[in-house]
Amino acid sequence: MPLPAPILHPPFNTVRLSHTVFDVTDLKASRAFWSGTLGLQVTAEAEGRLFLRAMEERGHHCIVLREAKLPAANALSFKVWEEGDLDRAKDALEMLGRRTSWVERPYQGRTLASSDPHGVPVEFYARMDRLPSIHQNYAAYHGVKPLRIDHFNCFSPNVDESVAFWNTLGFRVTEYTADEDTGALWAAWMHRKGGVHDIAFTNGLGPRLHHTAFWVSTPLNIIDLLDLMATTGYVANIERGPGRHGISNAFFLYVLDPDGHRIELYCSDYQTVDPDHEPIHWDLKDPRRQTLWGAPAPRSWFENGSAFAGIAPREPDLKAAPIVAP
Amino acid sequence: MPLPAPILHPPFNTVRLSHTVFDVTDLKASRAFWSGTLGLQVTAEAEGRLFLRAMEERGHHCIVLREAKLPAANALSFKVWEEGDLDRAKDALEMLGRRTSWVERPYQGRTLASSDPHGVPVEFYARMDRLPSIHQNYAAYHGVKPLRIDHFNCFSPNVDESVAFWNTLGFRVTEYTADEDTGALWAAWMHRKGGVHDIAFTNGLGPRLHHTAFWVSTPLNIIDLLDLMATTGYVANIERGPGRHGISNAFFLYVLDPDGHRIELYCSDYQTVDPDHEPIHWDLKDPRRQTLWGAPAPRSWFENGSAFAGIAPREPDLKAAPIVAP
Amino acid sequence: MPLPAPILHPPFNTVRLSHTVFDVTDLKASRAFWSGTLGLQVTAEAEGRLFLRAMEERGHHCIVLREAKLPAANALSFKVWEEGDLDRAKDALEMLGRRTSWVERPYQGRTLASSDPHGVPVEFYARMDRLPSIHQNYAAYHGVKPLRIDHFNCFSPNVDESVAFWNTLGFRVTEYTADEDTGALWAAWMHRKGGVHDIAFTNGLGPRLHHTAFWVSTPLNIIDLLDLMATTGYVANIERGPGRHGISNAFFLYVLDPDGHRIELYCSDYQTVDPDHEPIHWDLKDPRRQTLWGAPAPRSWFENGSAFAGIAPREPDLKAAPIVAP
Amino acid sequence: MPLPAPILHPPFNTVRLSHTVFDVTDLKASRAFWSGTLGLQVTAEAEGRLFLRAMEERGHHCIVLREAKLPAANALSFKVWEEGDLDRAKDALEMLGRRTSWVERPYQGRTLASSDPHGVPVEFYARMDRLPSIHQNYAAYHGVKPLRIDHFNCFSPNVDESVAFWNTLGFRVTEYTADEDTGALWAAWMHRKGGVHDIAFTNGLGPRLHHTAFWVSTPLNIIDLLDLMATTGYVANIERGPGRHGISNAFFLYVLDPDGHRIELYCSDYQTVDPDHEPIHWDLKDPRRQTLWGAPAPRSWFENGSAFAGIAPREPDLKAAPIVAP
Repeated sequence: MPLPAPILHPPFNTVRLSHTVFDVTDLKASRAFWSGTLGLQVTAEAEGRLFLRAMEERGHHCIVLREAKLPAANALSFKVWEEGDLDRAKDALEMLGRRTSWVERPYQGRTLASSDPHGVPVEFYARMDRLPSIHQNYAAYHGVKPLRIDHFNCFSPNVDESVAFWNTLGFRVTEYTADEDTGALWAAWMHRKGGVHDIAFTNGLGPRLHHTAFWVSTPLNIIDLLDLMATTGYVANIERGPGRHGISNAFFLYVLDPDGHRIELYCSDYQTVDPDHEPIHWDLKDPRRQTLWGAPAPRSWFENGSAFAGIAPREPDLKAAPIVAP
Repeated sequence: MPLPAPILHPPFNTVRLSHTVFDVTDLKASRAFWSGTLGLQVTAEAEGRLFLRAMEERGHHCIVLREAKLPAANALSFKVWEEGDLDRAKDALEMLGRRTSWVERPYQGRTLASSDPHGVPVEFYARMDRLPSIHQNYAAYHGVKPLRIDHFNCFSPNVDESVAFWNTLGFRVTEYTADEDTGALWAAWMHRKGGVHDIAFTNGLGPRLHHTAFWVSTPLNIIDLLDLMATTGYVANIERGPGRHGISNAFFLYVLDPDGHRIELYCSDYQTVDPDHEPIHWDLKDPRRQTLWGAPAPRSWFENGSAFAGIAPREPDLKAAPIVAP
Repeated sequence: MPLPAPILHPPFNTVRLSHTVFDVTDLKASRAFWSGTLGLQVTAEAEGRLFLRAMEERGHHCIVLREAKLPAANALSFKVWEEGDLDRAKDALEMLGRRTSWVERPYQGRTLASSDPHGVPVEFYARMDRLPSIHQNYAAYHGVKPLRIDHFNCFSPNVDESVAFWNTLGFRVTEYTADEDTGALWAAWMHRKGGVHDIAFTNGLGPRLHHTAFWVSTPLNIIDLLDLMATTGYVANIERGPGRHGISNAFFLYVLDPDGHRIELYCSDYQTVDPDHEPIHWDLKDPRRQTLWGAPAPRSWFENGSAFAGIAPREPDLKAAPIVAP
Repeated sequence: MPLPAPILHPPFNTVRLSHTVFDVTDLKASRAFWSGTLGLQVTAEAEGRLFLRAMEERGHHCIVLREAKLPAANALSFKVWEEGDLDRAKDALEMLGRRTSWVERPYQGRTLASSDPHGVPVEFYARMDRLPSIHQNYAAYHGVKPLRIDHFNCFSPNVDESVAFWNTLGFRVTEYTADEDTGALWAAWMHRKGGVHDIAFTNGLGPRLHHTAFWVSTPLNIIDLLDLMATTGYVANIERGPGRHGISNAFFLYVLDPDGHRIELYCSDYQTVDPDHEPIHWDLKDPRRQTLWGAPAPRSWFENGSAFAGIAPREPDLKAAPIVAP
């Protein structure tokens, strides 16, 4: 099955990923981790919810933590260009057979809720409250000094189907892994904002959220976080890394929040704004795609993810490939 | 004079700045500097011209050096989304009273030549030859390890006019300096690709090209270049820096090629893809806009620039402000 | 006048520079700067004195701030190998015609006070209270993340005399600047602990303390400090840098505390433990010795220094050379 | 068995580790690795031997590669203060029951050969040819930009015996691992030059050389080497890391040369010149001593080492502890 051709005139204009909401079981512990250790700024706190942003962001939040009985991920939110894009999105999603609804969200304008074909909950909005810049408030930088939310990565029970759907919405593939024999997609990275990805899909029990990533400035920020976590009681929350992915060229680290939600800290990717930017194809058997260098990923990294609240994941259509150790 | 509202539906879709052509008087000396010292890759050499790209680029070139009797800058080139955008560009530019012509350029498709109201020569194309990625050929990295061309910066005899014109083409202002009393623009940074700028304008004898910038990964790459230039006979080619601009938050260094063409090496800017990204206003009297920290810029940095071949610059409409030392 | 041969069997064994005491006029403001901004740890506070150490140090303090009516520097303190070295130091200093006395100092054992031939006050001790390591308490790192005190640098009215005296005590010259014509020393860097220097002397109105330096890990720590100082009201306290000295190969920054005491932040020097390590000779006219690259030093950097309490400096025997701009 | 008290007046004055000689089976392949990839400078080549130094070193070599039928390590060499120390070393070693001989070595003066109680071959010299500094020849830096040889690390069949012997020679313990129940030493780090170690011993089949380490400036140099090795055919030569040791606070990477000789690249250690510098005690069961953070070491790292030519290693007196995974 060949990679679908990129849709260069999508039905509506998605600018970028925006934020997500995590259900967490102990808001105080989560605050200590997300703000005290990672270094995100708390922008609001109310009714059991904590709103956070990264240091160069002007939007009100990129992460919402919501106290709940059980940990879960919630809708993946995207910002569109203008109000009219929300109406165009409604029409397009309904033409694709997806149900939509208008929902109320604090700090943001009109918001359209829907889901992808496997049930990944998604939301679109055009305007969110804007905050004064703290980009040059250097005294407020700490932890990993996170600069901006970068991407979501999801387990999908059928990556070919995920890519076909999101491609239709105008997300362009930058890198992908395919089975040499069948051509079936194993994983794909798709973007809107001109980087390697706003969202990626990997074959597995899904839909589930594998991780949410933040962009940082240099590998030294990530090394600082490792030193901090290793000496403040968070060593067990370091899951994988540091290392470099072949895919995306990212220097990476994966850590787990107190509820096991996985976070990637990430730098060294590249610009992909050209409409004729050629996707990079990786053979499923090439160990460098996962790990250009670095220790093999632990089993937990291949298996665990955050369930979306109320969405039962299903086994993938492709049998699980053997885990390729680098 | 207020900043014009950003045009959210421009007449044609410019993706990003692409490249420029420098006339140089000694191609061998220029090659030693641009490739041997800065670290750009030579992608082709023919008929007195050298084509170069930065390490993450797939397009055939971002700089062309052309042997000539006298140093000069030539057209600033931009990549548009698709062929149809070239026709739309032709119409739009002519509606704005600009002359256009179709020109032949090696390694690229149909190319539209025109100029801005002050005579800055510009060209637009949709497709350039693509080259295999060298982004992970780490053995080929050297010098400052330049990753991609980032922006052009021009002297303009009337920045309000420059901004009005380029805004009409869909370039959005991210930061600007205005005179508190008259509101006249002193300088403005404008982008298409989602960073702080693809092109910027500063009040001065113009049009002239002030500098061309390359994006690098960390300040340490720039420090490595300083060490290298200071010990290989290029110490006099270091003009200004390192330092940090308030504007754009850039950690910067300015160096001069053997003909005096100015190059900025640059990191630490930020993402501006949001259509409601608020421009940052800097007071002309705020020394931090030029230099958040670092030594004052030398007079040459305020005064010198590359003339565009065949274009006579004129005195600016605003009287030169006193140079503000940080 | 040739450089004196290094004394390989000095009369007593000095291990390293240890600490100094600054008289400051507003202890609260000084604390905000030295601890809150630079990042030194406060280890004790009592009777108008604040004791500080850097992050890898086990000795009780490397800086003492003492509230006083007027700013001043006080004795430069050195640690010797063992108690017997104090008695040997007393004999040696008295043989050299220097007066000595035993003084009481908090947190340290028997302490010998004396002075060099130009009146620089010095103290020697063998044992200071030791504190638990905080080297891996990464949560406590902030500011420039200072790791250890590195050296003192003094104005001397006669560098040849300074070098002759300190050489006799076993301090070995690693780099020096001499007048090509007369051979007179202009400046010299002398060490005991195996780095470029524990103490240095520069020709000038002296004795005065030019600066006290701290060693940091990478240039990025220094850039972090610049960003922090530039945005927290300390931009005027940045005096010179960043840059690289030819001498010592140091990547450097000079900042001023609230009373004008000068502090250098410093990395990239080298190991000098070999007894046959050849001093590097720099010509007074070679601009790279001061600044391999970087902006010229301001006049204040050449002229200002901290007076030693109660010691009147005198004009140097060598006429002031013209300030060599890089 | 308590740690022996440091000998503060050793029988002779060892300045630092100096160099070693590796037998390699393909000198061309070794040259490509040690010089072409790691970045050491070739200072001489003759009669099947290659001499190399790191970038800040003035001594003629820190590594000698010698073509041979079988890979092996040879004598560990140390520099002493002056010629008289060689005679004092001869007397001291013979008093300790060690055989000694005078040997001829190229580029160095009078050289004393001996061995430690388990047979580690050692050599001492006072003077080696000195070379002009290349510390500021920045154009010559490449690979990991190695600055200086830092330490040797050996497997010992009885670490208590190793420490007792080397302590007698004046090497001071900075960190050590001991069995909580018996007090037996499991590993110890010992220095002369004022860093964490010139030589270390770990319990195991010995004597064998576990690794030789080079000091680099920042973690980014090590990340550059990883990127380079992973893309130039050396990915299988990356054995362990990057990570941070609890012991020594080193940010580390272990790589293998073409013959399996292990090399550590290393930064972030600390100064230990104080004679009362307290050794840090690590519990054998504390996983942070091996790995403050980072992937567990592979089995090969615990088991493999370079045999010393002609020296048969023996099983250690302490039973192998279970490998403690971090």
